[in-house]
Amino acid sequence: MDFSTKLNAFVSHLDDALEHFVPALPEAAEAGPARIHAAMRHSLRAGGKRLRPVLTLAAAELGSPARAEAALPAAAALECVHTYSLIHDDLPCMDDDDLRRGMPTCHKAFDEATALLAGDGLLTEAFVIISVAYAAEPALCAALVRELADAASARRLIGGQMQDLLAEQAAPGQTTPATLEFIHLNKTAAMLEASLVCGGLVGGLDSKALAALRRAGRHLGLAFQIVDDVLDATAATTELGKTAGKDARAGKATYVSLHGLEHARELAAAETARARAALTELPGDTTFLLALADRMLTRRN
Amino acid sequence: MDFSTKLNAFVSHLDDALEHFVPALPEAAEAGPARIHAAMRHSLRAGGKRLRPVLTLAAAELGSPARAEAALPAAAALECVHTYSLIHDDLPCMDDDDLRRGMPTCHKAFDEATALLAGDGLLTEAFVIISVAYAAEPALCAALVRELADAASARRLIGGQMQDLLAEQAAPGQTTPATLEFIHLNKTAAMLEASLVCGGLVGGLDSKALAALRRAGRHLGLAFQIVDDVLDATAATTELGKTAGKDARAGKATYVSLHGLEHARELAAAETARARAALTELPGDTTFLLALADRMLTRRN
Repeated sequence: MDFSTKLNAFVSHLDDALEHFVPALPEAAEAGPARIHAAMRHSLRAGGKRLRPVLTLAAAELGSPARAEAALPAAAALECVHTYSLIHDDLPCMDDDDLRRGMPTCHKAFDEATALLAGDGLLTEAFVIISVAYAAEPALCAALVRELADAASARRLIGGQMQDLLAEQAAPGQTTPATLEFIHLNKTAAMLEASLVCGGLVGGLDSKALAALRRAGRHLGLAFQIVDDVLDATAATTELGKTAGKDARAGKATYVSLHGLEHARELAAAETARARAALTELPGDTTFLLALADRMLTRRN
Repeated sequence: MDFSTKLNAFVSHLDDALEHFVPALPEAAEAGPARIHAAMRHSLRAGGKRLRPVLTLAAAELGSPARAEAALPAAAALECVHTYSLIHDDLPCMDDDDLRRGMPTCHKAFDEATALLAGDGLLTEAFVIISVAYAAEPALCAALVRELADAASARRLIGGQMQDLLAEQAAPGQTTPATLEFIHLNKTAAMLEASLVCGGLVGGLDSKALAALRRAGRHLGLAFQIVDDVLDATAATTELGKTAGKDARAGKATYVSLHGLEHARELAAAETARARAALTELPGDTTFLLALADRMLTRRN
């Protein structure tokens, strides 16, 4: 199976899993106001690259092909947490974005309070999905909860968001390369690490392989964010599906503003090479993950 | 041990557990911006009744006295989720409250974005605490995650919050008693049910006892909210520790506005009697929980 066929199959299975695991509207009519479930689905359905769940499925498959299917609930949970973080990040008190993945952001399609609650609901739903789907494998369930909660915690994802806000409020030139790396390690890399490690946990990989997955996630995360900064500085809004050039207008510290466009591109390539090196330490067929690392580097949106 | 001594002991142990389990400031200095951890602690430390964790500890003790200590992480997690829900509920796009438990709300003490993230961080931390503390008992860990996540989900807590918002926006007189009950069953009772059931899970109680705990939580939750409505209509802001009379000024549907003050008081007493009936079905010494149910009915704040 070539890369694109496999990628599309993963994304299609994941979309089905999200439909299956996240409360649907008919059920919602009995279980409370339809509006909250509609808002959660609005943002989940807005699509996007599904990068995190694809990483989870691909990592699980390294254990055995059957484990990719077993990893679908974990992958859906990862996407719920990622989507929640985008909804809250887009709110007026945060980045105040109107457009996400080419569609109105949740608070634009609904309202601020509904978007706040939809984010809260998606974060919580991730833990419902994991605890229900892996109830018969409690040790795996506990390990997945720990991995996901830690990545999303105030020490990682939320800490990165907070530091990002503080950096935006700082005077121009105040943000150091070290602070910028802290932001991206936690705001972006933490969830990519967790995506791969959760897949590895479902795949039954050993601790050496899990450590390699974590390292690969760290470097993929840094590469991903550097590429994001490069695209923000160079791509058009229509191509990007979100407001382009926003960082520069906000005077925000990015890899491009701190290191220049060319050096930023070199850094992205270097982080991708480090991710590839970690991936080659893994058991099983890593062809897909290696190709995905390359695609992430050369993506246009 | 009399009721107040026992209550104070539970609260004191819980406060110690929160200090222990929720990231402290020195650690935060390495683990990211201190501001996010300071905001989380601001709201956790603001105190309040600690009702939910006390219910957890008391329910665990029904299994055996030693299980109350084992339930401390679960109790701390319940308080984290409760505190998160208050922080988000107080935000300008929600209830827009300046005062909570007699102290500035999180977004007043910090700012909106920090409060949003502090709430997100506390919700997530609850699952970190459970998954770390009960790692050696994975079946218990998985059951606790499922109970807590379900109670906090869009089908319960978040669904109740959403319906509450919709009721506030509805024309006066549009909110029916059935809608009001839905709001309170989910916005308030869900977390009281989970508090008792999580305690019962740690205490090793059987499914019959867990069902009785769930029923007790449901009726205590309804009683609690009816008493809240009565206090909002009758108590002073200084006594209440939060802005009093807000519901009436907002033209909000409450048990008092829909049923009148006297009938609301009768309904609170009836729900408390139902809670007591469920509690008497439990094994072990239920003296404390029965006394707590009475105190919740006669509380002044």
